[in-house]
Amino acid sequence: MSFEPIGSEVRFQGAMVKAGVERYRYDDGAEVSRDKVWHPGAAGVVAVDAQTVWLTRQPRETVGAQASLEIPAGKLDVEGESPLQTAKRELSEEIGQRAERWEEITAFYTSPGFSDERIWLYHATDLSDDPDSEPDDSERIEIVRWPLERLDDAIAQCEDSKTLIGLLWLRLRTSRHA
Amino acid sequence: MSFEPIGSEVRFQGAMVKAGVERYRYDDGAEVSRDKVWHPGAAGVVAVDAQTVWLTRQPRETVGAQASLEIPAGKLDVEGESPLQTAKRELSEEIGQRAERWEEITAFYTSPGFSDERIWLYHATDLSDDPDSEPDDSERIEIVRWPLERLDDAIAQCEDSKTLIGLLWLRLRTSRHA
Repeated sequence: MSFEPIGSEVRFQGAMVKAGVERYRYDDGAEVSRDKVWHPGAAGVVAVDAQTVWLTRQPRETVGAQASLEIPAGKLDVEGESPLQTAKRELSEEIGQRAERWEEITAFYTSPGFSDERIWLYHATDLSDDPDSEPDDSERIEIVRWPLERLDDAIAQCEDSKTLIGLLWLRLRTSRHA
Repeated sequence: MSFEPIGSEVRFQGAMVKAGVERYRYDDGAEVSRDKVWHPGAAGVVAVDAQTVWLTRQPRETVGAQASLEIPAGKLDVEGESPLQTAKRELSEEIGQRAERWEEITAFYTSPGFSDERIWLYHATDLSDDPDSEPDDSERIEIVRWPLERLDDAIAQCEDSKTLIGLLWLRLRTSRHA
């Protein structure tokens, strides 16, 4: 049994997302209508050096969080830029680092019931200061170098899906290599 | 530095979500405006017996997925129901099981940049057939009993944030106890 989209209607055009309704028809003739939020997607980075994982604390107004603990990340909002290129740009803009080694961890949908937002996660290592970094001063972002030996505390504090997935993946890799 | 909401405007009222714009004022006087999607929240269950974790495959029309691999879950759309009560109801409705032991794994925001959707995750064990189960026939859901020894394959195939978090958590617990 499969379906295909047969029409959509955007009813809210925001600065970051669009929202509305999309209809689908199944092979058996049934039609369904779903609320849908269109999102450009994003890339996030689990940036690790010998002792620390690089995190940020930033306000998340929509959930009332004054200082959400998150990995560096950003939207795919530059035309023609791949998820990996976005990840590299955000690592430089948010924490002033570049990395020699990049590995894709996974890609996932944050909430596939209503949103098409897809996030690509990367593991970045062999870090160094990026002399060309142009920090985005408009963002209220605090950089946090989190000790790897306290990784479980970060997992316990974190309330952001991409960060939880990235840190649980890192914790699993660490425990396997221990 | 902290902020508070100073007003919001709903511009799309869907069957499941609302979308619009909310404004916030920071202590330093700065005001920002954010796209916001209001969502009732959800609860998901990592239901495990001796050999398997209980999963589902279901269509996710908004991301074009014909058969998304996911843990049993559902929205907090019953007035007065707690997240744990929702989790118990969904375990019964979606896979016909009940559990004697419940543990909260974590709670997180799927995408705190624009949505207030929060998901509570539970670990359910001591499972048995629920004789009172009333399956929701309107849902095109296939039940999948996934062998724990192939848990890494499920993690590799899965593209849903709540399921990735639940299965990575389970994998980590398994590796610690191995």
